Amino acid sequence: MDIAKLVAFNGHGLPMEVLSREIPVLKAGEILIKNLYTTICGSDLHTFCGFRQEKVPTVLGHEIVGEIVEFHPNHNKRDYSGNVLEIGDRVTWSIFSSNPNSALAIAGMPQKGDDLFKYGHAQITDHDALHGGLSTHCIIRPGTTVLKLSLEIPLSVAATINCAIATVAGAIRLAGEVSNKKVFISGSGLLGIVCSAMCKTLGASMICMADINAERLTLSREFGVDRVFLSSETNQLPTDIDLVFDMSGSPDAMETGLETLTLGGIAIWIGAVFKARPVQINAEKMVRNLNVIKGLHNYNYDDFAAAVKFITAYYTEFPFEKIVSDEFSLDDSEKAFQYAVAKKPIRVGINMLKNADNEN
Amino acid sequence: MDIAKLVAFNGHGLPMEVLSREIPVLKAGEILIKNLYTTICGSDLHTFCGFRQEKVPTVLGHEIVGEIVEFHPNHNKRDYSGNVLEIGDRVTWSIFSSNPNSALAIAGMPQKGDDLFKYGHAQITDHDALHGGLSTHCIIRPGTTVLKLSLEIPLSVAATINCAIATVAGAIRLAGEVSNKKVFISGSGLLGIVCSAMCKTLGASMICMADINAERLTLSREFGVDRVFLSSETNQLPTDIDLVFDMSGSPDAMETGLETLTLGGIAIWIGAVFKARPVQINAEKMVRNLNVIKGLHNYNYDDFAAAVKFITAYYTEFPFEKIVSDEFSLDDSEKAFQYAVAKKPIRVGINMLKNADNEN
Repeated sequence: MDIAKLVAFNGHGLPMEVLSREIPVLKAGEILIKNLYTTICGSDLHTFCGFRQEKVPTVLGHEIVGEIVEFHPNHNKRDYSGNVLEIGDRVTWSIFSSNPNSALAIAGMPQKGDDLFKYGHAQITDHDALHGGLSTHCIIRPGTTVLKLSLEIPLSVAATINCAIATVAGAIRLAGEVSNKKVFISGSGLLGIVCSAMCKTLGASMICMADINAERLTLSREFGVDRVFLSSETNQLPTDIDLVFDMSGSPDAMETGLETLTLGGIAIWIGAVFKARPVQINAEKMVRNLNVIKGLHNYNYDDFAAAVKFITAYYTEFPFEKIVSDEFSLDDSEKAFQYAVAKKPIRVGINMLKNADNEN
Repeated sequence: MDIAKLVAFNGHGLPMEVLSREIPVLKAGEILIKNLYTTICGSDLHTFCGFRQEKVPTVLGHEIVGEIVEFHPNHNKRDYSGNVLEIGDRVTWSIFSSNPNSALAIAGMPQKGDDLFKYGHAQITDHDALHGGLSTHCIIRPGTTVLKLSLEIPLSVAATINCAIATVAGAIRLAGEVSNKKVFISGSGLLGIVCSAMCKTLGASMICMADINAERLTLSREFGVDRVFLSSETNQLPTDIDLVFDMSGSPDAMETGLETLTLGGIAIWIGAVFKARPVQINAEKMVRNLNVIKGLHNYNYDDFAAAVKFITAYYTEFPFEKIVSDEFSLDDSEKAFQYAVAKKPIRVGINMLKNADNEN
């Protein structure tokens, strides 16, 4: 196959457009992927709704799983963990590529390294269009972390590994010891429920979850949450929490989280990736209680490998298949976005093997 | 000698009072110390000025150095580092005692451990008065970390080890790697200049210091500071700082510090030990920049040992003797406090070997 189909996003309020593109000859270090499944992330929706600007036209979608179609001849055909890669293998890849020899990459922050490129966020050009999830194909660039996946993992679950699940794996790294710790998670979306599941498997003694959405709180119980709190009830939270994870980005939630921390407690902030009012901090309490706040954006190589390991081990243990409530075809991508905005499910899926509704 | 002399603080605005007390028989694990020198810490001044409440009457002064007069017979006569202790040895001891087997002590926070007692902060009772620095004697309790000191270290420098210097050693532990890092320190008091000296010896590539006081900034240059900024000039600070240390407790300074942080930068807050307005944090910047804030109050066992090691190695390298601008006798303690409040030197010393002014 030498023609790819992709769905271009032209800006907030403008119709998405189905395009055809010739698949270019691979450059050194590249891998051609046939996309199998893409899940629509919150940041895709932010762009779709105009809360976030990308250079258009662009191909949205960065939570992708696919299979290898072709290697550039010079590729070493190994994944990050050293597994041999072959044509037909199912793989996940990091949402970014960057220079692994740059100072920031060496310092454990490849997601901020030199020559940073992010899948699902780049402008379509004449030469370069296969870099997103709303497409039949994606070209993986050098400097991308590739990991082989078991064929047993459902596609809808596998698609989320390279964003939500890897970011949570990074948060867990920042938390340090989780065993026997009391945990509070604000935000019961995908990040929150995955965080609960990871903390549960690591032996957290109690997991509290807060959200504005009662339905999401109910689902979170199936991912290890012990106690749930609507945002209006957070004054009833315990105040001896060891680890707080904020997935919401809400200043109210971050302030509540800090109030719950015990001596030596750590708050990890992930959700705050959009503009909001400043968070008000009681510095005296932070000092006297030896508290810590750690910000995290995206993840590093090892976090991504930990995410694959976690999903491989636990995808049957927790009801991850409930993450995706509805699936659409690639041609119906715009419908999928509209549905996601209207219904706010945890995730909507784009299944490349599905035909458009009007073809059913 | 079986009579001790001490200076009681009876509350803000009330005269201090010189008292005599019989030295009690030592209890298990105790050591009787003859105090040699006490420096007046900022928190002593806060109490003296009524900004902070202690149960009165109390014996202020916790930055103390002294020599061993007597051991309870069951004492193992070893310091924390394993050195043999003898009568006549010069020692420093932690400002707190606590149960070393309590959960918080085992978790690396003995300063918050069970049965916490703090020297220089306790109420005088009929049975218990020798627990502060404004006294000829102090009884060291079990659960206190004792460290032997070289007789070569000037008394005025040795006195500061167990508070300012040990706390900074804790901050340096939280900073992790300092070598080749760009450092910004807000607050050019004792904590600030010691922090600069430690960062310098650890190979920091550049050290910036900000304060409201130009004279203190000038002194800070002798402790390794490369660039100084009056608080009104902090908009000229670099914005690629790796490590920020706030010793000021000023919300403005803490906010400025966060603005200077580069990707992966860490802010360590020590100064905020008094009530102030909330610190306003840009959570999105913290997340996208992978920034960290760590609060620290006091220090743990190893920080204290690191402080002794640092002063032993470097007390001649930096002009630590300039820390104490003026010395007073124990009888003149009240004068010393009044002088410290009026003149705001880095430290005022109480030299137990000095006679009162009116006896000169």
